[in-house]
Amino acid sequence: MTGIFIVLEGIDGAGKSTLCERIKEALSAEGRRVCVTQEPTHDEIGSFIREGRVKGISQAAEALLFTADRAVHTERICRMLEDGADVVCDRYFASTIAYQSVNLGGRASDADWLWNLNRPIIRTPDLTILLDIDPEKGMERIGVRGAKSKFEDAGYLSDVRKAYLELAEKHSFATVDASKGRDEVFGEIMRRIKEII
Amino acid sequence: MTGIFIVLEGIDGAGKSTLCERIKEALSAEGRRVCVTQEPTHDEIGSFIREGRVKGISQAAEALLFTADRAVHTERICRMLEDGADVVCDRYFASTIAYQSVNLGGRASDADWLWNLNRPIIRTPDLTILLDIDPEKGMERIGVRGAKSKFEDAGYLSDVRKAYLELAEKHSFATVDASKGRDEVFGEIMRRIKEII
Repeated sequence: MTGIFIVLEGIDGAGKSTLCERIKEALSAEGRRVCVTQEPTHDEIGSFIREGRVKGISQAAEALLFTADRAVHTERICRMLEDGADVVCDRYFASTIAYQSVNLGGRASDADWLWNLNRPIIRTPDLTILLDIDPEKGMERIGVRGAKSKFEDAGYLSDVRKAYLELAEKHSFATVDASKGRDEVFGEIMRRIKEII
Repeated sequence: MTGIFIVLEGIDGAGKSTLCERIKEALSAEGRRVCVTQEPTHDEIGSFIREGRVKGISQAAEALLFTADRAVHTERICRMLEDGADVVCDRYFASTIAYQSVNLGGRASDADWLWNLNRPIIRTPDLTILLDIDPEKGMERIGVRGAKSKFEDAGYLSDVRKAYLELAEKHSFATVDASKGRDEVFGEIMRRIKEII
C-alpha cells in the first residue's frame, strides 16, 4: 500500500518542524511507518544550497537550484511512498513559489514561471497544510525582535504570506490558523490527516 | 560600447572549442577585447555539475541544474558585454534544450518546458552558430570508434542533431556545415560575424 504524502508550509515561526515531528509520533503510534523530510534537503544539491556556496546569485538562479533539489527529493519521496511509508515534508514547491515570486518582484508572470518549473517535477501531495500566521507573531515566537535579515522583515513576510494564501486557494491546501495554541493547531492538523487516511 | 555575444552550438566533434579560440584570435587581431567562455561553467554550480557530484539524477533535475548555472553565467556574460568585451560562448541554452529534450523523451512538451525554464534567464545572443555535422563523422573526428557512452551513440546524437536543427529554425541560428574543411568552416563563421559587427 502506498503511503500518504503530507506537506507543511508557511513562514518561519508557524511551527512547521515541531509539528512535523508530532505528526510522525502520532502516526507511528498507530503503527504506520513515517518519514519526516525537509527542503532544502540534505542531499547533494540541498547541501550545496545550505552551505551557501552560491551566495549572491540571482533569485531566478536560486529558484532553479531549489527546484533541482526538489526534483531529486521527489524521486526519493516517491520511493518512500511506494515502499509504503508516509512522508511528512517540511516545505515543498509552494515555498519556492511563495518566497521567490515575492523576491522576483511579485508579478503574476513570476509566479507562473515558478509554477511551470515545478509542475512536471513534483508529486502532488495528498495533503498540504498551510500554517498561516501573522509575520510579527511568527517572528516573536522564534525569538526574533526586529528584522535582522530580509527573511525577518514583517513587510516582506506579509507579501510571502499573501502569496501563500493565494497558492492555498489555487491548489486546495488546508489552511490552518497557526496563531492558536500549539495543541489546538496540532489537533486541527490531525483531524485533516484523518480525513484522508 | 556593448560587445557582441556569439554562441557556438552543436554536438561533440563539430569543432566548437577550437573555433571559439580562432574567433577570439581573429577578433582580437582587429583590436577587439574578446572573452571565450563555456557551459557548464567553471563557476560554483558549473563545477558542481562537472565534478559529477549528482550522478544518476533525473534528466529534469539535470536540466534545472544546467539552467541555474546558466542564470549565473548570463549575469557574468552581461557584465562582460556591458564592459565592452565580445563574448564567445561554447554552448548556451540550445544545448540544454537539444540534449535534454531528447533525454526526456523527445516530446514537444519537453522542449517547451525546457524553453520556458530558460526564456527569462538568458540573454539573446547577437549570433548563434549551429555547427551541423553528421554524428558518425563528428565522433570519428574526435577519435571515438564505437559508442562508449550514450553521448557517443550515433542514433542518440542523430536525435540531438535533429533537435538542434529545429531550434536553429525557431531561433534563427546560422547553420554552418561543419563537415567541410576547418578553414572553410572558420571562414564561413567569420563572414557571419562580420555581418553583425
